[in-house]
Amino acid sequence: MALGEFELIERWFSRPARRDDVLLGVGDDAALLRVPAGSALVAATDTLVEGVHFLPDAPADSVGHQALAVNLSDLAAMGAQPAWALLSLSLPVADDAWLAAFAAGLNTLASRTGVALVGGDTVRGPLVITVTALGHIEDERALTRRGARPGDQLYVSGWLGEAAAGLELLRSNADALPDDPCVRRHRYAEPRVELGRSLRLHATAAMDVSDGLLGDLAKLCAASGAAAHVELEHLPLSSALLARCARETAERYALNGGDDYELLFTLPGDLDPASFLPAGSVRVTRIGSVVAGAGVTCLRDGRAVNCAVRGHDHFAP
Amino acid sequence: MALGEFELIERWFSRPARRDDVLLGVGDDAALLRVPAGSALVAATDTLVEGVHFLPDAPADSVGHQALAVNLSDLAAMGAQPAWALLSLSLPVADDAWLAAFAAGLNTLASRTGVALVGGDTVRGPLVITVTALGHIEDERALTRRGARPGDQLYVSGWLGEAAAGLELLRSNADALPDDPCVRRHRYAEPRVELGRSLRLHATAAMDVSDGLLGDLAKLCAASGAAAHVELEHLPLSSALLARCARETAERYALNGGDDYELLFTLPGDLDPASFLPAGSVRVTRIGSVVAGAGVTCLRDGRAVNCAVRGHDHFAP
Repeated sequence: MALGEFELIERWFSRPARRDDVLLGVGDDAALLRVPAGSALVAATDTLVEGVHFLPDAPADSVGHQALAVNLSDLAAMGAQPAWALLSLSLPVADDAWLAAFAAGLNTLASRTGVALVGGDTVRGPLVITVTALGHIEDERALTRRGARPGDQLYVSGWLGEAAAGLELLRSNADALPDDPCVRRHRYAEPRVELGRSLRLHATAAMDVSDGLLGDLAKLCAASGAAAHVELEHLPLSSALLARCARETAERYALNGGDDYELLFTLPGDLDPASFLPAGSVRVTRIGSVVAGAGVTCLRDGRAVNCAVRGHDHFAP
Repeated sequence: MALGEFELIERWFSRPARRDDVLLGVGDDAALLRVPAGSALVAATDTLVEGVHFLPDAPADSVGHQALAVNLSDLAAMGAQPAWALLSLSLPVADDAWLAAFAAGLNTLASRTGVALVGGDTVRGPLVITVTALGHIEDERALTRRGARPGDQLYVSGWLGEAAAGLELLRSNADALPDDPCVRRHRYAEPRVELGRSLRLHATAAMDVSDGLLGDLAKLCAASGAAAHVELEHLPLSSALLARCARETAERYALNGGDDYELLFTLPGDLDPASFLPAGSVRVTRIGSVVAGAGVTCLRDGRAVNCAVRGHDHFAP
């Protein structure tokens, strides 16, 4: 049964906010929210386009999950506590089953991370989803891309390259299993919110890896006015990834694949992350170091090797 | 010359924020913003789709203007002070001339209203633009749709129906002049920010008229648990509108046309808006009253007449 625009919002996106800092949520002209005293507001927005950011046959719940996850990943990279989200949904048709699954994917991640959906817009158009995620962080604690200094060590969370391998698998094999670990990584990114919160007291710089490690690291280096060495033998490549491709291909996915949504961060050289990360934190791996200069150099066994930087650029000439 | 995604953002959307409450703007994973102590954050998001919200040959500067204007209109309806915006831009091609004009339209309105563009996302896809506008309002002062009470008088700002007439003119006449006042109203909405700021101390309820007066008023009535009478002879119909169509058509545009972006608000029955609106404020017109009950009734010379409610619904079955 086709729903009208306002019934659609009422039905799928108007759950009462379970946060007492939501003074007014979905249903008026705008949301009214309370940022804690002594904290800065943190705001990020990211868009997913069908056929560009997800395959046309992607499960709707993964699209809903991912639309929020990629934004929470940006907040995590600042060390922020996520709090609220706004959803803009451009839809060709109001299909009940699709919307139910989409909303379930989004709402499940929102509940798990304590995020309240407080507003949005639903329009007819091509399938394009924009989420704005809002959070907050204690004064002076925000992580930026700017603070890396020569002598810092370079770390990344989780495993790199799985999402890119998963996308490749889906593209080359329509029968790829949905529970393949790489396919799941491509469809369901895990925003590193808790890690970001732990890092805010210790890291000198941080960002999330969304467009490929080398391209993103080059931006961190440029913002910090420093250079980085990446030690290829230390790239975190999972057994799931290495079971699906040769090590050379796995490295390529890890260096230039997109959609990892892991945190890339720098710590002062004498600081062991094990000294401050709580038990049960996501794995973090030292993958190199910050040095004086500019740009990113890949090393294998201490020797520079050529690794073309190919971060994702939507409008690359 | 085609620009890459990051050059494109750098070139058109990275003007330094001229607000000292922007701790970090465009260029990191998220923006860091300072909400004034004692104020609530106000957040709204709205999307424009080519061919749905604007005609495919719309001037790019009007698209940029409108993308921000419709969101500032939502903030105005809450009585908020606009402060910051995030822009998500899905573009089929990175055309320099189009982007220059789009950015000019958006940046000009942003400058005029004191809004800093603090973040966003640029992706390849169909032409879909989402802006999230953020502002703030002093505690307990926000206008909502909920506070209208029987005995209140009903007001609207500006003139109604011009934007709908302008759209009709463009649809029926490819040679419609761009400086026709109705065409301009369709392309360049004026968010009633100053009026909203004045109303926050006096109005019992407010919302912006974006989907047609009758449909929007019905929502205000439902939220307030009250009914409204609209006195048709008091609808503000401009001479520009009446020069382009018969009075009956003009009334239809005013009641059911979209894209007015005027403020609809209620005042206690004994309060004259002239007593608190500063000199030079936008015109406001009393168009009816709030009564006990539910729903909206149109009156002509005191007698109920039939006016079908046809608010815009993207997914109307």
